[in-house]
Amino acid sequence: MVRIVVTGGTFDKTYDEIAGRLSFRETHLPEMLHLGRSRVDVAISALMMIDSLDMTDADRAQIAQVCADATEARIVVTHGTDTMVETAAAIAGRVTDKTVVLTGAMIPYAFGSSDGLFNLGSALSLAQALPAGVYVAMNGRFFPWDRVRKNREAGVFEEI
Amino acid sequence: MVRIVVTGGTFDKTYDEIAGRLSFRETHLPEMLHLGRSRVDVAISALMMIDSLDMTDADRAQIAQVCADATEARIVVTHGTDTMVETAAAIAGRVTDKTVVLTGAMIPYAFGSSDGLFNLGSALSLAQALPAGVYVAMNGRFFPWDRVRKNREAGVFEEI
Amino acid sequence: MVRIVVTGGTFDKTYDEIAGRLSFRETHLPEMLHLGRSRVDVAISALMMIDSLDMTDADRAQIAQVCADATEARIVVTHGTDTMVETAAAIAGRVTDKTVVLTGAMIPYAFGSSDGLFNLGSALSLAQALPAGVYVAMNGRFFPWDRVRKNREAGVFEEI
Amino acid sequence: MVRIVVTGGTFDKTYDEIAGRLSFRETHLPEMLHLGRSRVDVAISALMMIDSLDMTDADRAQIAQVCADATEARIVVTHGTDTMVETAAAIAGRVTDKTVVLTGAMIPYAFGSSDGLFNLGSALSLAQALPAGVYVAMNGRFFPWDRVRKNREAGVFEEI
Repeated sequence: MVRIVVTGGTFDKTYDEIAGRLSFRETHLPEMLHLGRSRVDVAISALMMIDSLDMTDADRAQIAQVCADATEARIVVTHGTDTMVETAAAIAGRVTDKTVVLTGAMIPYAFGSSDGLFNLGSALSLAQALPAGVYVAMNGRFFPWDRVRKNREAGVFEEI
Repeated sequence: MVRIVVTGGTFDKTYDEIAGRLSFRETHLPEMLHLGRSRVDVAISALMMIDSLDMTDADRAQIAQVCADATEARIVVTHGTDTMVETAAAIAGRVTDKTVVLTGAMIPYAFGSSDGLFNLGSALSLAQALPAGVYVAMNGRFFPWDRVRKNREAGVFEEI
Repeated sequence: MVRIVVTGGTFDKTYDEIAGRLSFRETHLPEMLHLGRSRVDVAISALMMIDSLDMTDADRAQIAQVCADATEARIVVTHGTDTMVETAAAIAGRVTDKTVVLTGAMIPYAFGSSDGLFNLGSALSLAQALPAGVYVAMNGRFFPWDRVRKNREAGVFEEI
Repeated sequence: MVRIVVTGGTFDKTYDEIAGRLSFRETHLPEMLHLGRSRVDVAISALMMIDSLDMTDADRAQIAQVCADATEARIVVTHGTDTMVETAAAIAGRVTDKTVVLTGAMIPYAFGSSDGLFNLGSALSLAQALPAGVYVAMNGRFFPWDRVRKNREAGVFEEI
């Protein structure tokens, strides 16, 4: 069983055609797992649905708490890319005996050109394959939480 | 560096609009890696482009040979799903010191509803994360080559 | 009210992931009209679901009959491209007081790269705008039924 | 020959993955015509690339001028939906001897779920089929410029 903790981010942004702007509605996770023909036993916690630039310390503490409280030893967290590394650090401060993999997307899943499905396949697999620890999975790669940063100019994650 | 060995399969089938049927042209791998914003250093060997039901023992021997000869210790093989497990066995008979992950798709990547991008994200990550061995990565899961079969009625891979 | 008569064709082909080949299931018409945010009052007759190369004279007679019997004066017929012009002729032999527009697709709608949605927008609009007559709408153009042929080498419809 | 005048609107919005928001880059028109396998002889004027809520009277005057100056008798204008009707009125005040069809999209073309391709097929066909006049083509329907309004609550165009 893998726990998937949904927090929002570009991953789950959608286009509100009445308001004419990006917004959040429901998570696309179930649809994406269906598309990927996933047969992994998962439990989804739709914890929050926010842009990671708007995420507060209290939000991060809550995410870390949910990971600490989870009965599953393998966890995927979907998250906005801008502060993914900060949240990874917050989780690492609370959780040491589980495999937690954070992922997100540069382009909303609802866009045809999204990297979201690729990243979800990546994160879900890594959550099952990696030893205990907190990781960021983006760009087909994975990084321990304390050895990665987002290069905002290039729009990619890189090792530090 | 990850070596990606392309052999065809549903993954890479496309629609020939003049002939009105499915066919193979070039592999979609580079386009898929681009879509996934992959920053993994890869080398692609477009070895063959065939339906795995048409794959011969000689074809499998060639694939195993390419894996054995590769200088990379981490290899992804894209393959039709119907005989993926047979090819995995052929590779396992030749390669023991590398991580080889076979993947494919139930629906062609060129279709909007394909599982291909999800599976590629999965396989590429697993090739980097798993210890030496030959694995099949499908349905968000991964299996050692000798503990998996395709359930053709259900269209999924399962443990044996 | 526009009557839409569905006969199959590439337009409605889908990928059978268990059998690993193209096949027909249900028509995509309602989904396509939804995607196009269509507010046209339509009635859909899912008459047959066949490849137009397999269409018999009896099939064509039935399609013409349905068009003749329809109470609507404006009709769209979705059809395989290979014998679309033959069916247009069969309809023209039976129907003289209605606007009938045949359309189809070179690529199945279920493929990301389909021309189907473009063609449906085209045909549905033309059915409302054109005077009585039987027309083929493909490639963004429209042709009276007796002044068009499919160029099979190029995969386009052209004036004769 | 059909003249296509591009002015921006939701139709052409794209997702800027570095900035994390919707923006305009180049028009998707050529790509959309390619996808629709259009064989209509077109000339594209990429006049401006703006949200129609930001469109000024001077912008509308410029669009009307371009339509008046065009040597083609058949014109498609792509436009944001919010003030499409105002621009249609501005064009109608300048152009009386040409067929001008305005269209747009409720969802950006770059999103998988866009109505843009459907609307473009519709508008391009109507520009060829309708007599001289200025029209709005949305929701599979078409309206003379002075008998339509956008219902912003429902997100659809309706007759007045």
